[in-house]
Amino acid sequence: MGPIPENRVVSLNPLAKLSRKTNQMQTGLDSLLARVQPGWSLPGAFYNDAAVYQSDLEQVWRRGWLFAGHACEIPRAGDYFTLEVDTDSILLVRTENGEVHALHNVCRHRGSLICGSPSGHVRRLVCPYHQWTYALDGQLLACRGMQEDLDKSQFALHRVAAHEVEGFIFISLAATPAPFEPARETLAPLLRPQGFRRAKVARAVDYLVQANWKLVWENNRECYHCNVNHPQYIKANFDHFNADDTTARVRDEMKAVVARSEEKWAAAGLAATHKQAGMTCFPDAERNIWFSANRTPLVDGWESESMDGQSVAPLMGDYQANDVGTLRVRTLPNFWNHSSCDHAVSTRLLPAGPQRTAIRVWWLVDEKAVEGRDYDLQKLMPFWQLTSEQDWQICERQQRGVNSSAYTPGPYSIFKEYNVEGFVRWYLKSVNATSKT
Amino acid sequence: MGPIPENRVVSLNPLAKLSRKTNQMQTGLDSLLARVQPGWSLPGAFYNDAAVYQSDLEQVWRRGWLFAGHACEIPRAGDYFTLEVDTDSILLVRTENGEVHALHNVCRHRGSLICGSPSGHVRRLVCPYHQWTYALDGQLLACRGMQEDLDKSQFALHRVAAHEVEGFIFISLAATPAPFEPARETLAPLLRPQGFRRAKVARAVDYLVQANWKLVWENNRECYHCNVNHPQYIKANFDHFNADDTTARVRDEMKAVVARSEEKWAAAGLAATHKQAGMTCFPDAERNIWFSANRTPLVDGWESESMDGQSVAPLMGDYQANDVGTLRVRTLPNFWNHSSCDHAVSTRLLPAGPQRTAIRVWWLVDEKAVEGRDYDLQKLMPFWQLTSEQDWQICERQQRGVNSSAYTPGPYSIFKEYNVEGFVRWYLKSVNATSKT
Amino acid sequence: MGPIPENRVVSLNPLAKLSRKTNQMQTGLDSLLARVQPGWSLPGAFYNDAAVYQSDLEQVWRRGWLFAGHACEIPRAGDYFTLEVDTDSILLVRTENGEVHALHNVCRHRGSLICGSPSGHVRRLVCPYHQWTYALDGQLLACRGMQEDLDKSQFALHRVAAHEVEGFIFISLAATPAPFEPARETLAPLLRPQGFRRAKVARAVDYLVQANWKLVWENNRECYHCNVNHPQYIKANFDHFNADDTTARVRDEMKAVVARSEEKWAAAGLAATHKQAGMTCFPDAERNIWFSANRTPLVDGWESESMDGQSVAPLMGDYQANDVGTLRVRTLPNFWNHSSCDHAVSTRLLPAGPQRTAIRVWWLVDEKAVEGRDYDLQKLMPFWQLTSEQDWQICERQQRGVNSSAYTPGPYSIFKEYNVEGFVRWYLKSVNATSKT
Repeated sequence: MGPIPENRVVSLNPLAKLSRKTNQMQTGLDSLLARVQPGWSLPGAFYNDAAVYQSDLEQVWRRGWLFAGHACEIPRAGDYFTLEVDTDSILLVRTENGEVHALHNVCRHRGSLICGSPSGHVRRLVCPYHQWTYALDGQLLACRGMQEDLDKSQFALHRVAAHEVEGFIFISLAATPAPFEPARETLAPLLRPQGFRRAKVARAVDYLVQANWKLVWENNRECYHCNVNHPQYIKANFDHFNADDTTARVRDEMKAVVARSEEKWAAAGLAATHKQAGMTCFPDAERNIWFSANRTPLVDGWESESMDGQSVAPLMGDYQANDVGTLRVRTLPNFWNHSSCDHAVSTRLLPAGPQRTAIRVWWLVDEKAVEGRDYDLQKLMPFWQLTSEQDWQICERQQRGVNSSAYTPGPYSIFKEYNVEGFVRWYLKSVNATSKT
Repeated sequence: MGPIPENRVVSLNPLAKLSRKTNQMQTGLDSLLARVQPGWSLPGAFYNDAAVYQSDLEQVWRRGWLFAGHACEIPRAGDYFTLEVDTDSILLVRTENGEVHALHNVCRHRGSLICGSPSGHVRRLVCPYHQWTYALDGQLLACRGMQEDLDKSQFALHRVAAHEVEGFIFISLAATPAPFEPARETLAPLLRPQGFRRAKVARAVDYLVQANWKLVWENNRECYHCNVNHPQYIKANFDHFNADDTTARVRDEMKAVVARSEEKWAAAGLAATHKQAGMTCFPDAERNIWFSANRTPLVDGWESESMDGQSVAPLMGDYQANDVGTLRVRTLPNFWNHSSCDHAVSTRLLPAGPQRTAIRVWWLVDEKAVEGRDYDLQKLMPFWQLTSEQDWQICERQQRGVNSSAYTPGPYSIFKEYNVEGFVRWYLKSVNATSKT
Repeated sequence: MGPIPENRVVSLNPLAKLSRKTNQMQTGLDSLLARVQPGWSLPGAFYNDAAVYQSDLEQVWRRGWLFAGHACEIPRAGDYFTLEVDTDSILLVRTENGEVHALHNVCRHRGSLICGSPSGHVRRLVCPYHQWTYALDGQLLACRGMQEDLDKSQFALHRVAAHEVEGFIFISLAATPAPFEPARETLAPLLRPQGFRRAKVARAVDYLVQANWKLVWENNRECYHCNVNHPQYIKANFDHFNADDTTARVRDEMKAVVARSEEKWAAAGLAATHKQAGMTCFPDAERNIWFSANRTPLVDGWESESMDGQSVAPLMGDYQANDVGTLRVRTLPNFWNHSSCDHAVSTRLLPAGPQRTAIRVWWLVDEKAVEGRDYDLQKLMPFWQLTSEQDWQICERQQRGVNSSAYTPGPYSIFKEYNVEGFVRWYLKSVNATSKT
């Protein structure tokens, strides 16, 4: 065994290095960026080019904070689940002291995956190839058959930065991640009453959507498309009304419901943080805001985002009444959540190719709720399953169109697509900032 | 919304631009072209290299006139079908004034496909994403939710050049297409009596053939392979006899049948335009002839290209008798048609990768013919279904062979493969002419 | 027909030439090679990078001697099977004089595959496209329809170097293959008693393993993983004991069984050539040893590598008794065989992509053995089917891990992974030696 190789430190995938984008490609990216016009949609290459996708992986997905999953999925020490980001498999495991650790799921011996299943429970992390054995925090405990002088302390599993905030687990693959505290400070107080730590997953559904991840976000950032595409969603919400089409009747209705809500909510320690029609502004590239949450009223008569507006499960968290409106959370680049008094729906994106996004949608209820007795999947799921799948179809149709040689950027509506433009600004800033370094 | 971006004009796919072939690749293509020897088959890279395929797309498929489909498939205003060429989706739609228009099926707002199904009927073209609404000729009529100052006249759907000739629809993706009139002048008089405008599609079958599109054409351009591979076809036709193997008996038989035909046909206003055994010469690279049609007799006793030579449907078009021989049409790079007195068979090629061709074969009969009463698919289809599928298998086997490192160009038969050599000359001229620009 | 094109001689795939690795890529490979540290596993790019894979194809797979199959699969003149190596299809055919010839399965006319099925029997090799007809040794006999002056002697099928040694067929795609004689001299005497020429294939199973071919070899070159992963294999063998964990009991047992065997075997003309626990040393990069065979005892009470150690078929070859231990053969880059007194198991690897290996495993018995009467697949197959499939799973899990950006080379055990290091040295020498030329 020779000296420790220099490239032992964690770095970008050697594969990526070998086939790294040439100067020519970088020139291609730069000239592509130069063609972007404010107020207009992006040139098509942003949605299908392999070099842009690699750049997105490196500059967005390997730098930002990614939603990994729910803390309630791994309640006991030794519980784990895996997260697959690009070529990496990351192990989210609860250690004996109750913390959630994120570790690269890759043995330090010859690189085998350690945990082959997507979730499970272990006492130690034992590589199935030659049984190198690690503690739950990644320390190498044993490696039978190796030479005596091997210094075990040098062979812990590689760590990944991780934070839990009120039951949501985030990780960052960056060598030096951006500070997480601003996000925690904003999100924690709003999340707390929903009781995500005391939740359980009623069901999760995986989708492989044939669209670039940015198309999925752009779809998420406007309700211009809601009127015709989301018949369920628009019954419960005020998002699809904007400055150009909020009638006096709608404005009065919204005002009344906000007033009514604020009174009740103040008593319960809750606050309405979004009080108008239309979507809240997010993200904010200039102020570097990639996280946001707000509570807002539902339409009169709707206590839950269900097909008929009625509750479909027992109250969650600290809630004492059904009338708590809806709590909304979103973090870039890969997460949003819509919560009602009785259930919550989380959506996680992961990049799966220039024209593919792997999406998981979770339905959560209180941990004490029993299926069949307290809730029924047939009633719990349709509202967001329909709405989500309507969006995936839209995104796939758009992907096929932007691939055309005839696609040219089009203008955004200043009334209805301000958040799409905001997302694009955030994206371009992320890519530009890092491409300069 | 900023100023209109400069790249609003239709141009090549931005994707293609970003990953555009480097000078190195161009050098590769040039040195490949330099290795071609007249009279010998092409080097293998022409049939499997990704850079050659991209070059073919740009220099052949995005410049020439492509057969799109039959006018009889969209008889009424608002009827449409889509055509997928490389990354582009093109909408063929009949407008209120009865013309066929070709439009890029891509919304000018954020690029969604407008029509998701391969065919249908609409009153207006409404984008399913945000309901931007276009007239059948592509003019933007409405875009609810956009700012008032948006100039709708700037946002019509992008047009594609289109021509209909006697029921055949052709399009060109070129910014400045080659003149179509020479093709119309040649084809129209020959096509007219077949009555393609008054035809209907009895059945269409789609194939995905694992072979480069040029192998499919080379196969089409000789009957050297017919003797053993096409037992049905050679019973009805004289194509497989050439200068080296046309016996006196065959020559006499051909002469007799031509003489007999000319007499009858003259009375009916038809003319035999190919009077010998062997295939007619096509294409003609030097004279830039990419279109051709001819009428030629069938073997004595064959009135239709069916399994037993008997008619399998009512007479088509202007025909008054069964004995009209066979009408043959072919246009490069993607179409051929074989018509008998009672039915017609069209074949359309579309490129689907360096080693893949998407092929559709249509069987057409008179529009008034009723399935079950006037014709039976079991009798209508086998002759050309068998012959076509025999060819697809040949092409797939050849593709696997030319992929071998041991494949080296072989010599063409001067008796039997003159049209293969002609096709290769046409192809090389197309590629060379444009690569100089 | 013009003059014979210059590129008529067999050369590398023109495709490969057109898209040939740029200087940049070569630089990438060189810098990758420079990062390798003796005693540590290879950087990840060796197992997933497309440029490394192309380099492996050219420098290992198109230069070395590849196991093609068994002579007993083509006993009669005109019997053939095909072998697919990368893009090439090679025809292994027995000629009238009883020799095995290897020919490129590619017609010299327009490149069609000649034999489309994986095996069969023919009198002549007739191309299905235009019936060019070749003798079994590849000479062009007839090409109806071609011009008279075609010199048939110039159009024989391209030959591939081939050798048969005691029933094993090897080929080399190299223009100037390395000498085969050293391998024959080593292997022939050891193979002879097993009687592979008088064997028959009881069953062959094909696998497509999602792992780079080198991971499959590295797995094959150590028994460090056997204890936990191969419960069947370790009952029969001594391989998994090494210098660090061979107890006195094991040493004594091994010594006893060797002594007992040597006595019997000497009488039968056999010799034990590997007499200790642990695996025999192979390969030997420094001495250029890519072939090896040895006979070694099985554990006391095991006469065959079967589930219970009992024979599962009649004696093979020259054997007169069950107690002949096990004969092991391996040749780089693609073959190993484990033989017992009564049956033999061959494993052949073929590269199928940077992260894919096509593997065939054959079970052979004496040619006179009759299924159902003399052997039963349910008893014959499980020992090596289980052991093989356990390994494929290990390799696929390791592939996923080495793809991670967090994978970094790890140290080899000097006790247990000396042959893995030997394999890596052999591989690097193969790649380096040729990259200098």
